[in-house]
Amino acid sequence: MIPTIEWKNGRVFMIDQRKLPFEEVFVEHTCYKNVADSIKKMVIRGAPAIGVAAAMGVALGISNLDDSENDPGGIFNEIIRVLGGTRPTAVNLFWALEEMKKVFKTHQTDIRLLKEKILEKALEIKNNDEKINRDIGKIGEIVLKKGDTVLTHCNAGSLATAGYGTALGVIRSANSSGKNISVIAGETRPFLQGARLTVWEMQKENIPVTLITDSMAGYLMSKGDIDLVIVGADRIALNGDTANKIGTYSIAVLTKFHNIPFYVAAPLSTIDPDSKSGLEIPIEERPGSEVRNFHGSQITPSNTQVYNPAFDITPFELITGIITENGIIRTDPEKKIKNMLKKKEY
Amino acid sequence: MIPTIEWKNGRVFMIDQRKLPFEEVFVEHTCYKNVADSIKKMVIRGAPAIGVAAAMGVALGISNLDDSENDPGGIFNEIIRVLGGTRPTAVNLFWALEEMKKVFKTHQTDIRLLKEKILEKALEIKNNDEKINRDIGKIGEIVLKKGDTVLTHCNAGSLATAGYGTALGVIRSANSSGKNISVIAGETRPFLQGARLTVWEMQKENIPVTLITDSMAGYLMSKGDIDLVIVGADRIALNGDTANKIGTYSIAVLTKFHNIPFYVAAPLSTIDPDSKSGLEIPIEERPGSEVRNFHGSQITPSNTQVYNPAFDITPFELITGIITENGIIRTDPEKKIKNMLKKKEY
Repeated sequence: MIPTIEWKNGRVFMIDQRKLPFEEVFVEHTCYKNVADSIKKMVIRGAPAIGVAAAMGVALGISNLDDSENDPGGIFNEIIRVLGGTRPTAVNLFWALEEMKKVFKTHQTDIRLLKEKILEKALEIKNNDEKINRDIGKIGEIVLKKGDTVLTHCNAGSLATAGYGTALGVIRSANSSGKNISVIAGETRPFLQGARLTVWEMQKENIPVTLITDSMAGYLMSKGDIDLVIVGADRIALNGDTANKIGTYSIAVLTKFHNIPFYVAAPLSTIDPDSKSGLEIPIEERPGSEVRNFHGSQITPSNTQVYNPAFDITPFELITGIITENGIIRTDPEKKIKNMLKKKEY
Repeated sequence: MIPTIEWKNGRVFMIDQRKLPFEEVFVEHTCYKNVADSIKKMVIRGAPAIGVAAAMGVALGISNLDDSENDPGGIFNEIIRVLGGTRPTAVNLFWALEEMKKVFKTHQTDIRLLKEKILEKALEIKNNDEKINRDIGKIGEIVLKKGDTVLTHCNAGSLATAGYGTALGVIRSANSSGKNISVIAGETRPFLQGARLTVWEMQKENIPVTLITDSMAGYLMSKGDIDLVIVGADRIALNGDTANKIGTYSIAVLTKFHNIPFYVAAPLSTIDPDSKSGLEIPIEERPGSEVRNFHGSQITPSNTQVYNPAFDITPFELITGIITENGIIRTDPEKKIKNMLKKKEY
């Protein structure tokens, strides 16, 4: 499997997800500012992957300090500020930065140990993420019956994480158990993560995948062609309301109307204990040019007014279950989420 | 206003809708087979416009006959067969061909008179279409309040008809009455009629228009940003079930969930008295390449499996009203449709 993000020889390498599936180009980062830029420009995307990238960005920034630096607090705060200013919705970003802050507090007086510990933590976040995804996969595959056809939106796969994936991890796990799941991938305008990334990932593993435009989901449900929906998440509020790629909410409403199960698969690091409900989750608005153009091809007059929210909020009432590494939350989200976070010593 | 289709000097001219809004190129047709090809390749699209194009295609085929031809039945049947084989869903195509058949039956023994009468009928269909649209606009604008924001899908505008438009005709009419309606245009993948055609038409008349991707409709409804939906239709069954551009059904379900009115605007020629319900309406499947490529730019591996239905069916239960030139059908669709068609001496 092609790695989403790697630490090699003191540098951070990411596959450029804007160029997939046609070019497999790796971007090399020697400075935390470049990492921030790559997150902003979606060289790397997907909430868990953004978390890993942020942690590695901090490690890169600290590793570049001179060993004689005896007051790294100022630069550390600046690194956190720059990385934290990249994308507002995916909470894994802020979770990872908080994890790095804890390490910094403990070791800031010894710069060489700090470098070691900060890198150790970044690699731990990366390695844990893949392990967590495998747990989500194992726990989640119970919702899938042999031969099911699953609709997914955007890319909650290997590329959206350190590896294996959340929503696609559940499908991978089910297929490893011989369940022969087929996938329907919504293309996911405007960035086309479905057409470019999910299709590519599924094809690499010979999992049958059919591409549709986002507007076709309802029609397929009405014909009985979709057994189940599984998507990832960018931020989950304490009450279970879930921010995910724009279009997720429309799909959730459609599943309710057609009585089709709708699952979210996400690590506990996607839960934001500070957001009581979806109303408190900030929704990133991205440039209109993403809608007006694609691959350098303009589709509408350049002065066309565009609205381009990157995410929407699906209320927990529309969600059949949230699949986490600690179990599936089907009811009482707030109570269960609090218990899970406590156990995790969050 | 730029004409969608015109008869000039014994030839048929159409603006190439595949190239809009960036190039205003007119395609000249000297043979009915080219007209059929243009319908198939969507040089011209939109149910009423396809009806006009089919009628003009017949007129072109007949006008090319030698005046000494004394048995035009064979070639006439061939013209009907070729034009009828272009697109299966838009019923206006078959309605227009039926109208031409009636003229042929009456005048087939006099080739010179036949040419005259066939052309007369084709021009009548064209001219009536624009008049009917203006009637639909006047009747329909009652559903709009001052300052409303209307979501529309695909292009049911001037370009989808002989002029003025059905759904966009209602908006035009309301704005002529000073209602200051704003439009939200779904881009309408895969062919992007919303991004390319609806946006262009609205901008030409300074009607405020905002472009969104199709997947954003639900989120905007949840925020209270859409007051009403109006779309066109490609075929309406006797029970009011409506075939329209893929994605219409998803929007209709979303309006039901959010308690937002959902209107269809279409001429009576879009009603198919032979389809009892939506189940009897054939849904055209178009080539996968339309989805695999985004406005000429490839977005997914070329071997990717694609499902590309061009239309979907919205059941009458989800439709607040069907706006026709004879009134708005809100209840008892079958009874009202039969009465309207009777009055029209269909």
